[in-house]
Amino acid sequence: MDTQNEMKPYVIGLDLGGTNSVFGIVDSRGEIKATTAIKTQGFSNAEDYVSAAVEALRIVIDQVGGIAKIKAMGIGAPNGNYYNGTIEFAPNLKWAHDASIPLAKMFSEQLGGIPVGLTNDANAAAIGEMTYGVARGMKNFIMITLGTGVGSGIVVNGQLVYGHDGFAGELGHVIVRRENGRACGCGRNGCLEAYCSATGVARTAREFLTQTNEASLLRDLKPEEITSLDVSIAAEKGDELAKRIYDYTGEILGEACADFTAFSSPEAFIFFGGLVKAGDLIMNPIKRSYDQHVLKIFRGKAKFLISGLDGASAAVLGASAIGWEL
Amino acid sequence: MDTQNEMKPYVIGLDLGGTNSVFGIVDSRGEIKATTAIKTQGFSNAEDYVSAAVEALRIVIDQVGGIAKIKAMGIGAPNGNYYNGTIEFAPNLKWAHDASIPLAKMFSEQLGGIPVGLTNDANAAAIGEMTYGVARGMKNFIMITLGTGVGSGIVVNGQLVYGHDGFAGELGHVIVRRENGRACGCGRNGCLEAYCSATGVARTAREFLTQTNEASLLRDLKPEEITSLDVSIAAEKGDELAKRIYDYTGEILGEACADFTAFSSPEAFIFFGGLVKAGDLIMNPIKRSYDQHVLKIFRGKAKFLISGLDGASAAVLGASAIGWEL
Repeated sequence: MDTQNEMKPYVIGLDLGGTNSVFGIVDSRGEIKATTAIKTQGFSNAEDYVSAAVEALRIVIDQVGGIAKIKAMGIGAPNGNYYNGTIEFAPNLKWAHDASIPLAKMFSEQLGGIPVGLTNDANAAAIGEMTYGVARGMKNFIMITLGTGVGSGIVVNGQLVYGHDGFAGELGHVIVRRENGRACGCGRNGCLEAYCSATGVARTAREFLTQTNEASLLRDLKPEEITSLDVSIAAEKGDELAKRIYDYTGEILGEACADFTAFSSPEAFIFFGGLVKAGDLIMNPIKRSYDQHVLKIFRGKAKFLISGLDGASAAVLGASAIGWEL
Repeated sequence: MDTQNEMKPYVIGLDLGGTNSVFGIVDSRGEIKATTAIKTQGFSNAEDYVSAAVEALRIVIDQVGGIAKIKAMGIGAPNGNYYNGTIEFAPNLKWAHDASIPLAKMFSEQLGGIPVGLTNDANAAAIGEMTYGVARGMKNFIMITLGTGVGSGIVVNGQLVYGHDGFAGELGHVIVRRENGRACGCGRNGCLEAYCSATGVARTAREFLTQTNEASLLRDLKPEEITSLDVSIAAEKGDELAKRIYDYTGEILGEACADFTAFSSPEAFIFFGGLVKAGDLIMNPIKRSYDQHVLKIFRGKAKFLISGLDGASAAVLGASAIGWEL
């Protein structure tokens, strides 16, 4: 650890979610020294949000020795733009849905001018994985987050891919079914996210239940209330239909990863998020499908890994890792 | 120009094609000072090929003032691996089809130890475009070569994307049609190359001619002899069916580019190769399809450009540009 890190041994991470904003003060080994949180919603404008956040933050900053101990802050946020440090037209944030909010600058001004960086949550996860997780030492990998949506963070030559405008890495919106594709929240059809997110898996469950009369534990539930967690529980109990839902989901993910490899030929795909808790149930079909679909010269080369970060703190760790890069 | 470049003002470029190997000695502004060529085939092993190449090269090297004036050499070759400087199992090269040939090292040894770099032809084209062409100053762009096959060179953060194994950027083998996709030379079905290469366009022509009875200038030709050049000539004469062939080709390219943007959000797509000679006939459908299919946040941002390099010398220039990077 260099002198500067000894003097400023911590970074702040902010996982800015649709419901909660979770803050952590993190050291260079990824240990969270202090945490706090506020509700994300309930503010009429961004200024009020930042004020409330900084008020909560000051308490934990004091716990670790004051702002002089903080090197920087990183924010993982929906629709975050790394180049500008802004949140742009985030549909789920009342105080940011119709504007470009210079959130990084606002936090920096309230925190004695420390550098503040911001990117979307999946990119933050990728940086976190590279800093503290299973991607340490990797120069080329792709992080895929399987949550309510499908997100991605792409690392090429050791650097996050932000693209020309700061919005690269939207692999959840690559088209995987061009004919009769499912409607996606983005307004188009056939996106990866419409099949392989938690909601996509629930949708597959409802489709499969309608298409056959096969017995399944999932028939005990109201179709509209089935979640990906229910599918996972049923599959673990040996439910054949539930297992086929994972096979179907993994098949599509494997096909998509095969195309991603033609693009950047990563050393590894790293999966993160609720769906990954199903373990081999989802990972085995992904790998099988990938090997079947990938171009011959790439076969057998890429690793398929599950995130090495603890789920509860991963988002905060990922966000904090941006701070070390500033 | 720095002192070293004044002393060593030239690089050698080698465009190693299936038929001819074309060499150029190039200055830092992309001017070709001398050229020579040998046949690529007819050698039973790689040593004989390199000896013949160096024999031809020595004459032009002497013309520009001897090997002391040469900074480095760049090679664009099929199945070229940048990391190893090898050609690996190139199916169309008799002296390299069943082995990994350390071509960069072999040339370097014969040329007084100058640095020699090697990559595939599409990557070389991308580096050439960045060094001498329309991509000067761009940090994020995608080069797509539409020739006998479909190749690509991807630049992210100002660097070529070689991936973990040196083989990244195979966008011709992204799957664009998952159901009933055309068979591709790679052994899979539905690849971009099977639709949007010169041979893909000729195939589309034969399909369209079979599917309708519509009058077309292309009916004057034997179906199996139709080439993409014939389609281009017919379209320029106003042939409606020929124009629809370009619309169809451009539609698929636009869909594919929309997916590529979700990956790396490039500032520009740059097209090169025989098909591009059709100009607006192919470029307009690509742009139209892209705008229709790309995710909303990317709409209207990317440029669609035609290569700025002279077709005849572009491959040599591209290869030579690798030399400046070494």
